[in-house]
Amino acid sequence: MNILIINGPNLNLLGVREKSIYGETSFEEYFNSLKKEFSNDNLFYFQSNIEGEIVTEIQKNGFGEVDGIILNAGAYTHTSLAIADAISAITTPVIEVHISNIFKREKVRHHSFIAPVCAGSIAGFGLNSYKLAILSFKK
Amino acid sequence: MNILIINGPNLNLLGVREKSIYGETSFEEYFNSLKKEFSNDNLFYFQSNIEGEIVTEIQKNGFGEVDGIILNAGAYTHTSLAIADAISAITTPVIEVHISNIFKREKVRHHSFIAPVCAGSIAGFGLNSYKLAILSFKK
Amino acid sequence: MNILIINGPNLNLLGVREKSIYGETSFEEYFNSLKKEFSNDNLFYFQSNIEGEIVTEIQKNGFGEVDGIILNAGAYTHTSLAIADAISAITTPVIEVHISNIFKREKVRHHSFIAPVCAGSIAGFGLNSYKLAILSFKK
Amino acid sequence: MNILIINGPNLNLLGVREKSIYGETSFEEYFNSLKKEFSNDNLFYFQSNIEGEIVTEIQKNGFGEVDGIILNAGAYTHTSLAIADAISAITTPVIEVHISNIFKREKVRHHSFIAPVCAGSIAGFGLNSYKLAILSFKK
Amino acid sequence: MNILIINGPNLNLLGVREKSIYGETSFEEYFNSLKKEFSNDNLFYFQSNIEGEIVTEIQKNGFGEVDGIILNAGAYTHTSLAIADAISAITTPVIEVHISNIFKREKVRHHSFIAPVCAGSIAGFGLNSYKLAILSFKK
Amino acid sequence: MNILIINGPNLNLLGVREKSIYGETSFEEYFNSLKKEFSNDNLFYFQSNIEGEIVTEIQKNGFGEVDGIILNAGAYTHTSLAIADAISAITTPVIEVHISNIFKREKVRHHSFIAPVCAGSIAGFGLNSYKLAILSFKK
Amino acid sequence: MNILIINGPNLNLLGVREKSIYGETSFEEYFNSLKKEFSNDNLFYFQSNIEGEIVTEIQKNGFGEVDGIILNAGAYTHTSLAIADAISAITTPVIEVHISNIFKREKVRHHSFIAPVCAGSIAGFGLNSYKLAILSFKK
Amino acid sequence: MNILIINGPNLNLLGVREKSIYGETSFEEYFNSLKKEFSNDNLFYFQSNIEGEIVTEIQKNGFGEVDGIILNAGAYTHTSLAIADAISAITTPVIEVHISNIFKREKVRHHSFIAPVCAGSIAGFGLNSYKLAILSFKK
Amino acid sequence: MNILIINGPNLNLLGVREKSIYGETSFEEYFNSLKKEFSNDNLFYFQSNIEGEIVTEIQKNGFGEVDGIILNAGAYTHTSLAIADAISAITTPVIEVHISNIFKREKVRHHSFIAPVCAGSIAGFGLNSYKLAILSFKK
Amino acid sequence: MNILIINGPNLNLLGVREKSIYGETSFEEYFNSLKKEFSNDNLFYFQSNIEGEIVTEIQKNGFGEVDGIILNAGAYTHTSLAIADAISAITTPVIEVHISNIFKREKVRHHSFIAPVCAGSIAGFGLNSYKLAILSFKK
Amino acid sequence: MNILIINGPNLNLLGVREKSIYGETSFEEYFNSLKKEFSNDNLFYFQSNIEGEIVTEIQKNGFGEVDGIILNAGAYTHTSLAIADAISAITTPVIEVHISNIFKREKVRHHSFIAPVCAGSIAGFGLNSYKLAILSFKK
Amino acid sequence: MNILIINGPNLNLLGVREKSIYGETSFEEYFNSLKKEFSNDNLFYFQSNIEGEIVTEIQKNGFGEVDGIILNAGAYTHTSLAIADAISAITTPVIEVHISNIFKREKVRHHSFIAPVCAGSIAGFGLNSYKLAILSFKK
Repeated sequence: MNILIINGPNLNLLGVREKSIYGETSFEEYFNSLKKEFSNDNLFYFQSNIEGEIVTEIQKNGFGEVDGIILNAGAYTHTSLAIADAISAITTPVIEVHISNIFKREKVRHHSFIAPVCAGSIAGFGLNSYKLAILSFKK
Repeated sequence: MNILIINGPNLNLLGVREKSIYGETSFEEYFNSLKKEFSNDNLFYFQSNIEGEIVTEIQKNGFGEVDGIILNAGAYTHTSLAIADAISAITTPVIEVHISNIFKREKVRHHSFIAPVCAGSIAGFGLNSYKLAILSFKK
Repeated sequence: MNILIINGPNLNLLGVREKSIYGETSFEEYFNSLKKEFSNDNLFYFQSNIEGEIVTEIQKNGFGEVDGIILNAGAYTHTSLAIADAISAITTPVIEVHISNIFKREKVRHHSFIAPVCAGSIAGFGLNSYKLAILSFKK
Repeated sequence: MNILIINGPNLNLLGVREKSIYGETSFEEYFNSLKKEFSNDNLFYFQSNIEGEIVTEIQKNGFGEVDGIILNAGAYTHTSLAIADAISAITTPVIEVHISNIFKREKVRHHSFIAPVCAGSIAGFGLNSYKLAILSFKK
Repeated sequence: MNILIINGPNLNLLGVREKSIYGETSFEEYFNSLKKEFSNDNLFYFQSNIEGEIVTEIQKNGFGEVDGIILNAGAYTHTSLAIADAISAITTPVIEVHISNIFKREKVRHHSFIAPVCAGSIAGFGLNSYKLAILSFKK
Repeated sequence: MNILIINGPNLNLLGVREKSIYGETSFEEYFNSLKKEFSNDNLFYFQSNIEGEIVTEIQKNGFGEVDGIILNAGAYTHTSLAIADAISAITTPVIEVHISNIFKREKVRHHSFIAPVCAGSIAGFGLNSYKLAILSFKK
Repeated sequence: MNILIINGPNLNLLGVREKSIYGETSFEEYFNSLKKEFSNDNLFYFQSNIEGEIVTEIQKNGFGEVDGIILNAGAYTHTSLAIADAISAITTPVIEVHISNIFKREKVRHHSFIAPVCAGSIAGFGLNSYKLAILSFKK
Repeated sequence: MNILIINGPNLNLLGVREKSIYGETSFEEYFNSLKKEFSNDNLFYFQSNIEGEIVTEIQKNGFGEVDGIILNAGAYTHTSLAIADAISAITTPVIEVHISNIFKREKVRHHSFIAPVCAGSIAGFGLNSYKLAILSFKK
Repeated sequence: MNILIINGPNLNLLGVREKSIYGETSFEEYFNSLKKEFSNDNLFYFQSNIEGEIVTEIQKNGFGEVDGIILNAGAYTHTSLAIADAISAITTPVIEVHISNIFKREKVRHHSFIAPVCAGSIAGFGLNSYKLAILSFKK
Repeated sequence: MNILIINGPNLNLLGVREKSIYGETSFEEYFNSLKKEFSNDNLFYFQSNIEGEIVTEIQKNGFGEVDGIILNAGAYTHTSLAIADAISAITTPVIEVHISNIFKREKVRHHSFIAPVCAGSIAGFGLNSYKLAILSFKK
Repeated sequence: MNILIINGPNLNLLGVREKSIYGETSFEEYFNSLKKEFSNDNLFYFQSNIEGEIVTEIQKNGFGEVDGIILNAGAYTHTSLAIADAISAITTPVIEVHISNIFKREKVRHHSFIAPVCAGSIAGFGLNSYKLAILSFKK
Repeated sequence: MNILIINGPNLNLLGVREKSIYGETSFEEYFNSLKKEFSNDNLFYFQSNIEGEIVTEIQKNGFGEVDGIILNAGAYTHTSLAIADAISAITTPVIEVHISNIFKREKVRHHSFIAPVCAGSIAGFGLNSYKLAILSFKK
């Protein structure tokens, strides 16, 4: 299977700096371990802090180029109707993931523009959320 | 591992009656297939339409009796603070699952009393949501 | 016709105690007079103070066992999504009745979880609301 | 008994035009069948698209001229405090009826200015709602 | 001075019927007593239950035909933006009056579309509110 | 083409009186210039301050009598569900127009009952909004 | 008659300073002219910027010491439940006055804690509001 | 005196398990100490996790069977209109108690369905809240 | 023990005037009976209609001068963040009391600024609420 | 005339892919037909998925470089205050267009940040909305 | 320059008592250090717990008596329209300061009555906020 | 000290164009004057109209690269959770500045996503707000 992981704003800070706070593992390191674990699949990774670039990346992979998209839109989960519209417009299934349990956080994070247009949603399992999302495509 | 699945109100109707509507698979049949797939683990199942019985079942399994609880509280997801309090009071980790994407449904289903007190949340993958929840305990 | 009347919490107090307040007629007495008036039909009666037992009773009579259900869910009208889900899941038509005009009462009673999923609604006619509901099945 | 049926805006379109959409029965035809069924009673009918004319008609029949008023205020149900005030001011009992289940429709139709000041309310039984309202006056 | 009093819906019931409830004085009788008391002025009176007729009457007297308008819009106070627009469009000063203290009544009556576009507002003095409004034009 | 323009409350004041405020052009004058410009089409004009009369006029032209209706409902745009219901009930396409940009005005004017049931909406172009609406029917 | 006028915070600035802004007339000057005009009555005047002192003054004059109280509570109109409670507790009638039309001002000034507990309300007539309030006690 | 203490959902966990968290004292132990302290009175105790069973228990003791009911409805305080209705329907006085100060907790716990129908309310004194409630019946 | 009772606005009217309404007992009389009943303790009493004086009194007794403060802030319960801040700033425990059940009254009285910062809360027991508050300090 | 059309996020998908869904016409094709129809005018076209690039493009054409801007901001219509600020800051008139009737869609699309700062608004006419916008500049 | 610092309720507790909590520095000490640092200017200081006394102090210094007022209204920031009205009424510029970042605190502190009427606002710099406010007058 | 100033959308228009509106001073000119005034410090400047580029710039300077960041996020202040998240993630202190008093403007500008995560906030001093922010780092 071909699966694309898209990370939104600030997720590039994971494990790169301030490791005592954000953990020792950068997303790139985690991504490499995922690639080893799913060596029969093709995993791709895209990160941007820019809302519109995420829209464009979703569009580029939205019509059969990959079998599934795993999206952690970060803060744009709660403010971006444009990303939601991009997901609605494409045919590739999109799974929403979150590292933390967003419902334990401030109220603004309880509303998701993206959840209603995704096929499914996985939250609260740390980096393991991404792995569960890959497994969800396997059935 | 010892894992308990708790289903809330109306989930007993799955696949039992009106199969053309609810699908051919009853939850019992699905549960049996899960038990085969995870034959090294002990899976338990409890269903009730009564909010307070779900509270009691969570309490009974809340202090190490099982390694994890998978909870689909159905409509009580959106109206039961008592179930949320039970989850807060125990030490066993609880994963919230939903068969459908609740964010595609009416507004009252967008708020979950239970989400903020669960370890994680999985929604929208059909019956497969339960399997992903079991996998989440495996890491 | 086979018709089931379901009464929710506190409706068991009608006419049993404190008759100066609740009237002289208990629901059982009224139910007996209904049975006489509709002697060609089979009328059944169920009352519970427990939300989940009402869910179960609706499920048991939801697939052709009776021709119609008349439901006065009492306070659960305004707080129970689980009962509403049960009504949505079944095929037997359900009529919502209320003894008093709920729109003359406090604001919390102006919203009904149950109204949108019932076939029809009758309120404000005293115990006569039940009789009108039976007549509604006759066309 | 003398009973007046008042219909509000757009209810004059019922069955007159576009029968494939609104059904074959005009309200006048239905009204004639009601008059036959209740041949011992005097039934009267008034329709207007103008809020203030409905207020005036209610006033004219509000002090014993008829035994009861059956009111389907259509859209004015949700926007007219003036009609509600007229009902409050009179002594003739008024029953609110609706052809469809208004709680299944858009949110603006869930609030009724008229419900709190009516004696009772009947909704969702198609044209049969009017007949049930007549029966409600018979006890 | 030339002063026009406009009364809105249901104010035609004052003192005409059900005098035990609404008082013995009809507005016409009160209006005659006002005419005697202010015999040097020309007082005019208009009443309608129809929102649009009140709009038209305001327009007709809005450009110098009278020195002032006293408006008790009744229920339209709380629902009619059209009457408010008419008042905004004219140059004749309009005083809003109410017989009762509308802030003691239900919440819907606490908001007035008309108050922000009137020159002044007098409420709660019974029929005497109209007299105070006339005096307000005298300075 | 046969096109009907309907104007709601207070639009009869345009250019008739207080020309320094409302402009020199009355709607009748503007309507005549439109008729000249679109001399191959039949343009009709109706104005009323009464909500229910606008409902009736829409009904009368709702089933093929004209090719299109251009509606400036004035204040009723924001308060009339009855007019919205009339538009929903007919088959003639309706275009909503406004002379000013209603979104620059007070908050009550930001919500339109009428917009969701119209085919299209044109606002903010002065009297030119009507001409653009006619052009919209031409494709 | 004995009538007490109570003015709340910032009303002591009227006409004293910055006369180009607040007008040439101080409230004391206006009060003197009122005393001349109503020379057969005893008029009293109290002003305070302190909410609790206004509460105390109302209490002191609340049980027959004066025939009526005229209250312009200024900003406390919109924030003081304590003053409202004082008015509720006494038997002397209180008339609420405002110099300007408070409904033309910001939204916070549209809600009055004081209006529902006063006998009547007069607003928008400039200093003349006080005179009208005195006249209201005369009937 | 005969006094009944009713505890709602999750209060059965007090002091039984996880004593480091919930304290060393189970409610049963505390109840025994209360019985000793009030040895001249008859104290009764009922606990249930099921909303409807609490409704039933209130009904059973609502008409003079005991002199007073002390109710800690736990989470149902904030979600159960059915329990509130039961309290309204009975004649035995009910005192609402809470162990913690519910107003220091999440917002959902600031609204109580039960408070408006209880005779009094005591919150924030730990288990001592129950003792104060007993004393409140003594006067 | 040294205990200070602070009463807020309008509570000085209790039993002093209009005894048929407020009861025969003034707070001073009740306070004297309390002093007799708790003759081993030192009870102090302070009343003010001025929000800021209550703030000051709390500050003066906030750091060990007394063992506890009993506060009935009256209307300031619902409007004073300043009093809440004073309570937060001190170390002496404060108990909130109310004579009536504030949750049976208007909606504005359902929110308390003071409740979240007090140690405990007692409401609805008439003057007895103060006595229970004293007992709460005794354990 | 020089006229710039700016399209926001996801509008680049129109007619390019999934033509069965989005129609056969790409915006580029439609733009070419517009250029032919308005061959005496200079039409320019800009599309971006990035909010800030749209801000920049508006700034670049905001001071006389073109005679008018036609803006379909897509999802940013409902979330971008930055684009609204850019429109406020420039002197070139901007017309807001939408292909569909946004008031028929979900609630989040009923609020437009952009509408209050545009000269006019045209919605619901399909691609024809752009042509009407061009015509609006012609008068 | 002549500059007046006004502190609202509870700010008199700064550094006076409970120094481990509130810091070692009382406002008087800090004020003395400010006077030394700005020895060419005249600094004045006023503190009150009483809303109305702050109104009066603002009025007294509102017409040129000082060059600027620095106001930390404490809790009254969020509840006092009277102080806001005083600031609006005067000509002396007022700077709002806060020691802490009020936006990090509870929601009630996110709304400021005072901010919209002040010239500028400085928050979150500890006692240094006052010094920055003085510097703001220097340009 | 090393201090970075970040300006958000539309702030690049300051003083560049339409100087009669935006003032004669471009931000670049002002920045040069700041560099002269603070010649012992290193001041840096970054502007972007793109939300995600501001996120990236904050990240790049978030871990000790500079001593402080001064951020005027313009419209993104009110809509960008992503920028707020970036500020939360870094260790460099950030000061929020605004040229105008945002609380005097429309309601949408009263809520700041950024304020709760900044160290301090300065608004309303014109370009001088930036200078005060620099001074705030100096203590």
